Parts: sequence; structure tokens; C-alpha cells
Amino acid sequence: MTPDEQRSKAKRFLELHHAPAILKLPNAWDVVSAKIFQLEGYQAIATTSAGVAATLGYPDGQRMSLDESTQVTKRLADCIDLPISADIEAGYADDVEGVVRTARITLEAGAVGINLEDSSSCDVHGVLMETPAMVQRVAGIRMMADEIGIPLVINARTDVYLTCETNSPEILRETISRANAYRAAGADCIFIPDSGILDEKILIELVREIDAPLNVIVDAHLPSIPRLEEIGIARISMGPRPMRAVLARLRIIARELMQQGTCDAMTEETMSYAQVNSLFER
Amino acid sequence: MTPDEQRSKAKRFLELHHAPAILKLPNAWDVVSAKIFQLEGYQAIATTSAGVAATLGYPDGQRMSLDESTQVTKRLADCIDLPISADIEAGYADDVEGVVRTARITLEAGAVGINLEDSSSCDVHGVLMETPAMVQRVAGIRMMADEIGIPLVINARTDVYLTCETNSPEILRETISRANAYRAAGADCIFIPDSGILDEKILIELVREIDAPLNVIVDAHLPSIPRLEEIGIARISMGPRPMRAVLARLRIIARELMQQGTCDAMTEETMSYAQVNSLFER
Repeated sequence: MTPDEQRSKAKRFLELHHAPAILKLPNAWDVVSAKIFQLEGYQAIATTSAGVAATLGYPDGQRMSLDESTQVTKRLADCIDLPISADIEAGYADDVEGVVRTARITLEAGAVGINLEDSSSCDVHGVLMETPAMVQRVAGIRMMADEIGIPLVINARTDVYLTCETNSPEILRETISRANAYRAAGADCIFIPDSGILDEKILIELVREIDAPLNVIVDAHLPSIPRLEEIGIARISMGPRPMRAVLARLRIIARELMQQGTCDAMTEETMSYAQVNSLFER
Repeated sequence: MTPDEQRSKAKRFLELHHAPAILKLPNAWDVVSAKIFQLEGYQAIATTSAGVAATLGYPDGQRMSLDESTQVTKRLADCIDLPISADIEAGYADDVEGVVRTARITLEAGAVGINLEDSSSCDVHGVLMETPAMVQRVAGIRMMADEIGIPLVINARTDVYLTCETNSPEILRETISRANAYRAAGADCIFIPDSGILDEKILIELVREIDAPLNVIVDAHLPSIPRLEEIGIARISMGPRPMRAVLARLRIIARELMQQGTCDAMTEETMSYAQVNSLFER
């Protein structure tokens, strides 16, 4: 990918955040999962840190190395002809300089977007950093990308709802305050994941009060994607949920073969050998 | 893993081929898929070349590099406390020396078993090599493993049924002849994959005429695993079928989110975030 190609891919990815249609951004964990999403018409691909870590034998939360994570990002960027956004968690460093370096390495690997979170771990019990610390990180990455000349799409994630696991006016105010600060520092999109707390009423409030495209994770407790689009959410992602769902399917297949000695679950719903191979034709 | 640990793992794996119970050997493509099989009680793990290749962005058939394939084998051997058998396809080389080198690299990566096939590609249109060429490869690998002192379990695969895609007495005779030659050269198990031709009658004939443990791929056109055990099959594997099935599931999830904007398929059958992370606790 030439710098010009990467630049236009980044621009295209940014435009998708401002289009009338909600951006449906699926989270892949390897090349073939990304290819399946591409086959179904998605226009950009994000990574899931939890999913990538699991394929490599690690729990989520910066336990794999930056190098291992970056290799997967690079492979996706090399193999998939769509904008790739990489989940760099909390930046794999404790200081601004280190986090900016991580973002630069990720950009150099071919990503045109990043997710950066403001808690020390994506575990639900992670610790939120102070707002200025995250603001400096976002601003530093923006400056780095401007210098390189690629409009890297920074998706700044605030984990207020994730780490507090509660719903109150204070939590809502803290989320809005952080979101607007991150936006002012140069974030292109604000990502607000939750574990079952957000509802339509809160989302409408967030859309009204935050001056940036908003990203939430699609899940059963939230409105459907068409409704999220109506209330003004700009981007939905899926996090590790698709991977967790296919692992559950694999477990059912494995259990049936072990316990019954039959292969109904494995054969009733499948792609052919030729179909899978054809995903990689160039 | 110390040499003694690897030796005892290899012995244990070989014993499973001679136990009264059929060996159910699942084919994984990354660490988390192997962990799911381990969770369901499987006692050893094999790789699927097609599956590993797909995660890395390649079609099947030695299109990924030996180094890429070996890295996955090593990661599995490092992360999974079960015997690991690696699919080395046709040995990633054109001569005996090169194939033996591939087997040695695979052994050094931590595998205690290998699959080696006698066609130039695992594509159904692959070309069978002459019997003596495969015999020399098997014998060379046996000698290498003996020198190192690890009883590497050689699963010699004959692709007569796969490449001919027909059923005749000649095909059956050719399969039996090759199998016994490979066994005499040092193979521990004979693998006879097919694409829908084998049936119980042929399998009974193969068990009677081949002087080695036999491995077939479980599939809907074959008897159930308990029946395969009764007729004397020693080992069943799954090839890329579990991966192909979970890719089909991923495609259903992706399509529903894209077309309906809902996530029923993603949420109705899933593992929790904590469950997946707990697979990697040491």
C-alpha cells in the first residue's frame, strides 16, 4: 500500500462516520473472519483485541505483546482491501510518548483507524485514567498522524460505564465531559462500550450532548441497528461478540462429536472447502 | 518442554492409537479453537492446514510458508498441555531431504505427531506421487525421529480416493498397497481421507487388509464414531470441517447484522467474555 493509497483509505473510512447511513463495523480476529465480513458487504473492518489475543493464547487486556498484535493488523491490512481499524487497547504503554509510538507502529502496519481506551485494562474492573492523561494521548496521536499526513481515524473509547457498572446522572455527566474533551483533542469518533447499562434514553442524551460521531457495541439490550441509526448513532461495532458466538458453536460441535459420536452440528450448517479457499483468490 | 517431556507426550499419543477406544482427534487452527476442544475432553489436538492457512489469508495447499505454519504449531505446543500433531501437507519440499527437514523443524517446534500426504497438493485435483517416493519420505522421517530419540507419530496419508474421486476395486487395491508400504517404512497410522466415497463396507475391507491403525475423517456420509470404533477404525479426525462450520455460523451472524440490523444469531448461543478469558489462565 502506497502512502497515497493509505491516505485515501483513511479519508474514505472517516467519511463513513459522517454518511447518512450508520457505519456497521465488524470486529475480526484473523484474515478469514475479516474475509467473511467482507463477503457480506461490510465496508471496513476493525479488530477485536480480545479475539486476536484468544487466537494467540492470551486473555484480553494487553497480555499479548504489541508486536504480536501488530503482526495481525499488518496481515489484515495486507490481505483485505478495505479500511482496517486496529484495537490498540490502552496503547501498550504508560506514557504519552509510548502510546503515540504504538499508534505510529499501527499506522505503519497499514491501519487507517485505531481504538484507544481510557482505562488501564479492558477488563470490566479496569481503572480509569484521569481525563487530562487521555487528552494528551489523543492529542499526541493526532499530531503524529498529521505529521505523517494520514488522517488516521481516532476512535477514543471512554470506559466510564464499563468500569463503574452503574447508571447515574454523575456517570452520564462524566461520560459526556470526557467525550467532548477527547473530541476537542482530536478524536474523530467517541466509543462508549457498556455491559448492559445503556438504553435508548441514555443514547439519545449522549448523541445530544456529545459533539462527535458516536460508536456503541451492538447487543441484545440495545435497540436494533436501524433504530440506532434513527437516533443518531454514527457507528456500531461488535467487539468480541461474533467470536464468542462462533466459539460457542465450536463447543457444541466438539461436544456432540465427543459425547454422541455424531456430526450433525458440524455438517448441517457449513461452507464448502472450495468456498473457503475461494475467499483467498486474488 | 524438555526432551523427556516431549518423548513421554509422543509415547502417550502413540498409545492412544492402540487403545480400545477410538482416538477422537480434533483439528484446530489457532490456540482458542484448540482450547475449546481441550475443554470438551479431547486428549490430543491436530492442526488443519486448510484452517491455519485461512486464518493467515491463504488458500489450502502449501501456499502459506513453512515458517508461518510452524509458528502456529509452536504456539499450540507452547500453550496447550496435550500432544500436538501437525499437518505438514506434502512436506513443503520436493525431495526426501527437504521433507525430512520439514518434519524435524516441526518436531523441534514441539509437535509429537505429523500428517504427511502422498499427493502434491491437498486439493482434490492434486497429483499422486509414486509409492516409492512416499516410502522414502516416511522412512527418512522415521530415521530422523529415531536419531533425535522422540517417537514421532507419523500419520501417512494416502490420497488415492481424494485424487481419483471414484470407487473401484483398483482404487481399493492401490490404497491398501500404498498403506502397507507406508506402514512398513515406519508410519504409525494410515490416514485415508475421502470426499464422499468411503462407506462401511470399504472401511471394513481396509481395516482387514491394512496392517496399521487407520484414520478417517468423520463426516455425514460415514457411520457414527461408535460404529467406526466397532469396525476397528483407530482414529478419527475432523479436517477443516469444524472451521468451515463456524465460518458458516459467522456468515449467518454477519448477514443478519448487515441485512436485518439485529443480533439474534450473535447472542442466542454464546460464551461469555469471562469464559473465553478463563481458557487462558495458567
